Amino acid sequence: MAAPVALIQGASRGLGLEFCKHILKNKGPAAVIATCRNPDGAAELRGLVGQHPGKLTLLRLDVTQEEDVRGAAERVKESFGRLDLIVNSSAMLHPSGKGETSLRDVSAQGTISTLMTNTVGPLVMAKYFAPLLQKGGGGFGLQPAEKSKQHSGIIINITAKVGSIGDNGLGGWYSYRMSKAALNMATRNLSIELGRSRPKVVCVSLHPGTVNTDLSRPYHKNVPKDKLFSTKHSVNCLMSIIDALNIEKTGKAYSWDGTELPW
Amino acid sequence: MAAPVALIQGASRGLGLEFCKHILKNKGPAAVIATCRNPDGAAELRGLVGQHPGKLTLLRLDVTQEEDVRGAAERVKESFGRLDLIVNSSAMLHPSGKGETSLRDVSAQGTISTLMTNTVGPLVMAKYFAPLLQKGGGGFGLQPAEKSKQHSGIIINITAKVGSIGDNGLGGWYSYRMSKAALNMATRNLSIELGRSRPKVVCVSLHPGTVNTDLSRPYHKNVPKDKLFSTKHSVNCLMSIIDALNIEKTGKAYSWDGTELPW
Repeated sequence: MAAPVALIQGASRGLGLEFCKHILKNKGPAAVIATCRNPDGAAELRGLVGQHPGKLTLLRLDVTQEEDVRGAAERVKESFGRLDLIVNSSAMLHPSGKGETSLRDVSAQGTISTLMTNTVGPLVMAKYFAPLLQKGGGGFGLQPAEKSKQHSGIIINITAKVGSIGDNGLGGWYSYRMSKAALNMATRNLSIELGRSRPKVVCVSLHPGTVNTDLSRPYHKNVPKDKLFSTKHSVNCLMSIIDALNIEKTGKAYSWDGTELPW
Repeated sequence: MAAPVALIQGASRGLGLEFCKHILKNKGPAAVIATCRNPDGAAELRGLVGQHPGKLTLLRLDVTQEEDVRGAAERVKESFGRLDLIVNSSAMLHPSGKGETSLRDVSAQGTISTLMTNTVGPLVMAKYFAPLLQKGGGGFGLQPAEKSKQHSGIIINITAKVGSIGDNGLGGWYSYRMSKAALNMATRNLSIELGRSRPKVVCVSLHPGTVNTDLSRPYHKNVPKDKLFSTKHSVNCLMSIIDALNIEKTGKAYSWDGTELPW
């Protein structure tokens, strides 16, 4: 069987970078394609390429530019011909760096920018990369014995617990919450469309916990220390979930500990 | 007590136009502010102004333009000083007029346009009009006896059953479904922020059923006749729900028959 291929979108830092490290370290022969907006500025990721020659490929991709996504998918098709896993990792809290604490902070432009990166980006990724996932070898997840239930690829959309409408008791963070709720709908829709196809592609939303990244940095002082995860811990948890994914589990949102999140 | 004031956004046709007619006919002294993108092209709405001089005010407003919304709120403030009800009614299925049947039909621009009108528009409306609703007289809904639980105004976001993530078993219509899921999150957030304020503003999402409007026209042939509502029937149902709204019911999504929709 050919070595699995994983594409990590938003890989220059935070969770995306950690996913690259984790797969390179723990997934034997798997190849990793790391995408980010500005490879020239992604020093740590470029260093990683040096450490894993031939196994880690860097690709420029801005999810807010549909032509970028289309072009990147063409290049992956030419070089690899298929994919086993995509992790849509890039996200912003708000262009200002802070979630809206009240309606006064809301702006149409801020909300649209957030939706563009967090929601439309992953959807457009699915549009162009789904055909490659349908050609995948099912190298991630747990394949059932029954052939008709096996999957060829997996799409992971990184969501957030605050994107759960039913769980929302505090309010605020309008743009971010709305972007993740809409992303969860995209996950659900993708799981339906790609779950009826043969071969099947699994799609789930995963909540990484509150992770020590730039996105959440302004709020770290409010988070109890044992609730603020390192990217390493979070990705360890998320990869455990991914390792157990199959078509029966598609179309849902899971938290880092494997529990299902309400919509 | 001063006559109630209702603002119907997206009033040139369909549900919005019917809300204007219904309130003018059935809500005695209530004044109606009808907003639409292009009043010059809204012949039926202009005719209605002629039939109800002094009770129906026409206001140009494009929800995709934040400056428009801000300006309209200033004009309503000057002329009325307050509001009792806002109905956010304008929506599109997709700029093409048809919901995406598969990923192939998805485009970043189409999704963003749909989100702009269906989701960001109502949120920006809430930003600028909430202060006027907080000055409202609570002329719509059912006020409880207990004064601390009374509301001054109501925001209605017209959602759709296909915007329920949990109810989504068919897939497709990516942009529309995502826009309504995100709108439901906005409803939830608004209910929290405006429910803690004094005076309180109620905010709910309402699903009008499948209504005989331009939005759903391409799909009418697939809808059983008794499931395809006239705008009049739908608005009758929705106004029954609105008439019974209070702060206990805020922050949820209801179908035309009063049942609660899952997120």
